[in-house]
Amino acid sequence: MKNSFGQNVTVTVFGESHGAGIGAVLDGMPAGIPVDEGFINHQLSLRRPSGDISTPRVEADNYIIYSGVFNGFTTGTPICIVIPNENTQSKDYTADRFNARPSHADFVAYEKYHGFEDYRGGGHFSGRVTTGLVAVGAIAISALKQKGIKIGTHISRCAGVNDAAFTDYETEIEALNNKQFAVLDNAKGEEMISAIKAAKADCDSVGGVLETVVLGMPVGVGEPWFDTLEGLLSHALFSIPAIKGVQFGLGFNIADLNGSKANDQFEVKDGSVITKTNNNGGINGGISNGMPIVFSCAVKPTPTIAKEQNTINFKQNENVILQAAGRHDPCIVHRARVVVDSMVAITLCDALSAKFGTDWWLK
Amino acid sequence: MKNSFGQNVTVTVFGESHGAGIGAVLDGMPAGIPVDEGFINHQLSLRRPSGDISTPRVEADNYIIYSGVFNGFTTGTPICIVIPNENTQSKDYTADRFNARPSHADFVAYEKYHGFEDYRGGGHFSGRVTTGLVAVGAIAISALKQKGIKIGTHISRCAGVNDAAFTDYETEIEALNNKQFAVLDNAKGEEMISAIKAAKADCDSVGGVLETVVLGMPVGVGEPWFDTLEGLLSHALFSIPAIKGVQFGLGFNIADLNGSKANDQFEVKDGSVITKTNNNGGINGGISNGMPIVFSCAVKPTPTIAKEQNTINFKQNENVILQAAGRHDPCIVHRARVVVDSMVAITLCDALSAKFGTDWWLK
Amino acid sequence: MKNSFGQNVTVTVFGESHGAGIGAVLDGMPAGIPVDEGFINHQLSLRRPSGDISTPRVEADNYIIYSGVFNGFTTGTPICIVIPNENTQSKDYTADRFNARPSHADFVAYEKYHGFEDYRGGGHFSGRVTTGLVAVGAIAISALKQKGIKIGTHISRCAGVNDAAFTDYETEIEALNNKQFAVLDNAKGEEMISAIKAAKADCDSVGGVLETVVLGMPVGVGEPWFDTLEGLLSHALFSIPAIKGVQFGLGFNIADLNGSKANDQFEVKDGSVITKTNNNGGINGGISNGMPIVFSCAVKPTPTIAKEQNTINFKQNENVILQAAGRHDPCIVHRARVVVDSMVAITLCDALSAKFGTDWWLK
Amino acid sequence: MKNSFGQNVTVTVFGESHGAGIGAVLDGMPAGIPVDEGFINHQLSLRRPSGDISTPRVEADNYIIYSGVFNGFTTGTPICIVIPNENTQSKDYTADRFNARPSHADFVAYEKYHGFEDYRGGGHFSGRVTTGLVAVGAIAISALKQKGIKIGTHISRCAGVNDAAFTDYETEIEALNNKQFAVLDNAKGEEMISAIKAAKADCDSVGGVLETVVLGMPVGVGEPWFDTLEGLLSHALFSIPAIKGVQFGLGFNIADLNGSKANDQFEVKDGSVITKTNNNGGINGGISNGMPIVFSCAVKPTPTIAKEQNTINFKQNENVILQAAGRHDPCIVHRARVVVDSMVAITLCDALSAKFGTDWWLK
Repeated sequence: MKNSFGQNVTVTVFGESHGAGIGAVLDGMPAGIPVDEGFINHQLSLRRPSGDISTPRVEADNYIIYSGVFNGFTTGTPICIVIPNENTQSKDYTADRFNARPSHADFVAYEKYHGFEDYRGGGHFSGRVTTGLVAVGAIAISALKQKGIKIGTHISRCAGVNDAAFTDYETEIEALNNKQFAVLDNAKGEEMISAIKAAKADCDSVGGVLETVVLGMPVGVGEPWFDTLEGLLSHALFSIPAIKGVQFGLGFNIADLNGSKANDQFEVKDGSVITKTNNNGGINGGISNGMPIVFSCAVKPTPTIAKEQNTINFKQNENVILQAAGRHDPCIVHRARVVVDSMVAITLCDALSAKFGTDWWLK
Repeated sequence: MKNSFGQNVTVTVFGESHGAGIGAVLDGMPAGIPVDEGFINHQLSLRRPSGDISTPRVEADNYIIYSGVFNGFTTGTPICIVIPNENTQSKDYTADRFNARPSHADFVAYEKYHGFEDYRGGGHFSGRVTTGLVAVGAIAISALKQKGIKIGTHISRCAGVNDAAFTDYETEIEALNNKQFAVLDNAKGEEMISAIKAAKADCDSVGGVLETVVLGMPVGVGEPWFDTLEGLLSHALFSIPAIKGVQFGLGFNIADLNGSKANDQFEVKDGSVITKTNNNGGINGGISNGMPIVFSCAVKPTPTIAKEQNTINFKQNENVILQAAGRHDPCIVHRARVVVDSMVAITLCDALSAKFGTDWWLK
Repeated sequence: MKNSFGQNVTVTVFGESHGAGIGAVLDGMPAGIPVDEGFINHQLSLRRPSGDISTPRVEADNYIIYSGVFNGFTTGTPICIVIPNENTQSKDYTADRFNARPSHADFVAYEKYHGFEDYRGGGHFSGRVTTGLVAVGAIAISALKQKGIKIGTHISRCAGVNDAAFTDYETEIEALNNKQFAVLDNAKGEEMISAIKAAKADCDSVGGVLETVVLGMPVGVGEPWFDTLEGLLSHALFSIPAIKGVQFGLGFNIADLNGSKANDQFEVKDGSVITKTNNNGGINGGISNGMPIVFSCAVKPTPTIAKEQNTINFKQNENVILQAAGRHDPCIVHRARVVVDSMVAITLCDALSAKFGTDWWLK
Repeated sequence: MKNSFGQNVTVTVFGESHGAGIGAVLDGMPAGIPVDEGFINHQLSLRRPSGDISTPRVEADNYIIYSGVFNGFTTGTPICIVIPNENTQSKDYTADRFNARPSHADFVAYEKYHGFEDYRGGGHFSGRVTTGLVAVGAIAISALKQKGIKIGTHISRCAGVNDAAFTDYETEIEALNNKQFAVLDNAKGEEMISAIKAAKADCDSVGGVLETVVLGMPVGVGEPWFDTLEGLLSHALFSIPAIKGVQFGLGFNIADLNGSKANDQFEVKDGSVITKTNNNGGINGGISNGMPIVFSCAVKPTPTIAKEQNTINFKQNENVILQAAGRHDPCIVHRARVVVDSMVAITLCDALSAKFGTDWWLK
């Protein structure tokens, strides 16, 4: 299990940026989940580059559902979706074949795969591989919706600009899921976009932080060791290229509080158990406590930049200067958003199936 | 696979705080690794409460190696180590059986296990369960040492006090691994300890941040999807009770840098490939690049405190006031240190075995 | 995952024949399953050597439940049971340290573990390791019983003598589970025992076939690829030392039938779906069809015999003559029976949990 | 993990008989294995129906390698091969939508997938799904060849006719791998083919037994518990539709021998360790001993036959008479042969990688 993740629900990714196609297999999903191709297209559009803050390589993302869907519903067997690659300009990349882009995977790929890797456009390490995850993730999101579980992510910080905080999860999540640039405060979003454009003009890139909320998780999902919800989600999230930190609830900020301030006091309210604060992000002892699951991910600035950089030619083992050709993104924070949602949905489908089994989903 | 982790090297934990014993099984370790019981004892002593900044429950941690070790070496078969529980005062806990300690697992355990959980002293959620991980982790650390791989962790922040930064990994790691309270700057350590005592006097608790360094990792370990080194390590680390955030390299701070500043430029130096900075914590594309692996973990303040707190009785579904009885730690950051090292060692043994196989370790 | 098996319910074994102890961890079992120590003892007694058809090494099998059981019920956390080794006579084995018993694992263990293996009494390859499986398997059997699922195995052939065929599963299973030598026809059993004694007198050993029936399996358990019920069960069964063949329903005999004779015709009878014959052993397409699961296992004659045999000293790489010292069984078919039942129970708990989840068991 | 198998090398299958396509993902294969499309085509041709002893549905099996292959070599990343379905006549199947073919998976699929299954042509249970396994299996076979490991399978029995026994593995394996109907004795093959034709003329079907040999396996591969070579191989083999029994070495026939006859005596011959007999099929204690791995599989007669059969309509829950429409095979033994070889190759790549790691393959 390398390019596969999950036990009861398992996702497998495959593909290289400039190969015949990329895709994913989602296995273990229950039968009877509606598959809405309009929704898959919508999700893919959220990941697709658009406007002048993204790479000029734009793919139509015409996908083929090879299996696991019949008459508009999942069949319960593996769902394989492939997105053939169309708009490839591989000649951009061959010149720098042996020059390691700093902070990119070129060097480690060469070492790991002994020179046999498909190096074109980042190959299997390309963000393009996430397209398959988004396509199958749309089905996982649909499955969760049927059980009243909703996911939403906003760009809580980008290029040093903070978005507003959530004030009303329910309605704000709804809105976020229809925004190409997912912020709560549009004015802040405009500031971020300006900063991205400025970085682009300077042949540079910027990073940011994504904050995610999951509503409607039942109590008791996750395990004390090792399949804690935090462990499962972080394992999934760190696969998304550029993510370098994951924190739940207050995360690193909880370290400075005293226990009496950090603890989330339980309360029975209108007959239901809630906590007055949610500093633990809805997870105690690795297990959902019924409050919203809240976490955030640090997204590093895109490593591929047009600026000149010192680096090495790893075949010659010598120092060189690199000015990256090819097409790149000055920022991927906004595009990574839907990938986060997709991976979270798949991971939660897995954790829920462990507790409730496969048949639960149809009840 | 719930209480097990890893594929080529797998660890399984078991036990409850006040049951007959706790322990772990470490499977997949190569044959021929020296098992030094003095070192196991040393590691256990680093986890054991000591002084007046820890719980007064002190166990001798007399362990039994039931299997997998013969004539002082690993046999290549599963290593089971059990630490029988001795100093148990279960009567402390029964009074509050149905009162949920805020931010602890009492409520979720009750829901998940339908009231059958062993609630005494936190049961299977107790930090005591980590004793088994430390015992078997000592063997994983010994295996890595034979391959020139070393792990060291310091308390980079505790109760709002910062430790000094690393200046010389090699010698500082050595020193840290022999310190009960692992700081680089002893004066800062004294400040932290004073703050812990103050919190204790106030019936409260404090948290902190642990920073870990791994030296000597070969290039090319880890997978692009999903078994990235970040994903594997975070999955393991979030199992450790109280950890709420994990970040690699600059982590959340990398989000504010431009790519040109964040990127780690490669350089050939004395014939070897290094990077001039290590903002990515030694990992590119999920794979080790030969630089030190660097990451940090946020440890929340101990949730069990002696201060009065509002909470619920989850059996009666009513609000109550809780003043926790039992023995607890005003801080677990310093004790969690060796648990982090142990989990990291086990995880890296797994990732290394995937690349190099079992036989490599004896070469 | 080497010495572990299963996904939703996972069993891990550890231990060597002459080490400190052997045992098993059973994880993923639901909370609330009654743990009847009398029943565990009963199951262990079925595996224990008895009479003069077994090894004279008799252990009391005093087990310690270290975890996962509280107030007589499973807690839902890992159940670790250890059986310390008591009656060890290791001196018997050292003389032949480097002489490979034919068809035993001595040679492969030496090669695989590079000489670090605990060779005493077969070490980790010893049939004694199955004691742990039987102990935790008793809990799995109890869980199945609560859901109306029953397992029974008889010695369908031993030393060339055939037992009678099943005529009434329900009552015969009940009887078998209380017999030390599990045959349907006691007269045939006496014949088998005589043949075993004759082999023993001749310093030789005999083998046989075990046939197992599972009643009460719900329809729809198992997967088309790769976790077919046949695949899961055979994977588990081939771990039991000495098993060299596994077949379902008619097994190898189905190969000679025409489809029209082999096919099990469906019928609605009293409102329920049954098949008129059960040549497929209750499994179609890898999935239970509601009929009894029926399969049989070939058990080879015990490889360790007192007769002189040609073999090698694998350290010297030279041919030698071996007359095995130590204590051995002239037949293990009757003792393997309860191990089969235990492994089957654990495997079915896993497959059922995949479909129904963890919470189902308490309904 | 349901439709995936393996740990270090993992295969995932997907697809339905009459969906858009079927295929497989093979992950964990080392980089640098030559991918010979001529050989893939050759392997697919061995599985393809031909002559008048197979179904008239003949597909060109034009496959698309979507990923993991670059410049004629594996890249080390997941290899996804899809074979679009072309020659589909779904109208044949709809009439009998709710009529369960005896011994086929129609009924269990309906129960398991709650009526959402793609029922056309057997859907995900169709033997057609094995096409993907054969395509990726060809690459696994190529990898093994580079390490001197060869696999060959013959039809040792079909329709009651026995093939000759192996006399010279090396050359006979070579010949078998180039035969459409894999027998050692062509005259016996003609007898089998006549019997198949006779069954077909009678609207019936026949079964048989496949015997497989693996040459060149290094000593020490496999685990004592639970990932014995027998366990791993049988798990993989029972996924192949129609296989109902798997036995190693003498298999069920070993049960009747005494230990002194069954045991394979070791011998040092020309400096190498061999066994004089190979009754254990090259496996001791679950681990390869350096002798040829030998096992056989029982293949049941094709359940879909044109003869009238009693069965049920599972929607109406009533008894009906079925005369299966559609196109079917009177025998699949000869076509299953290459599927067996493919699954064995994938499984052995996995087991070898566990011992030797990924980098070993290029040495």
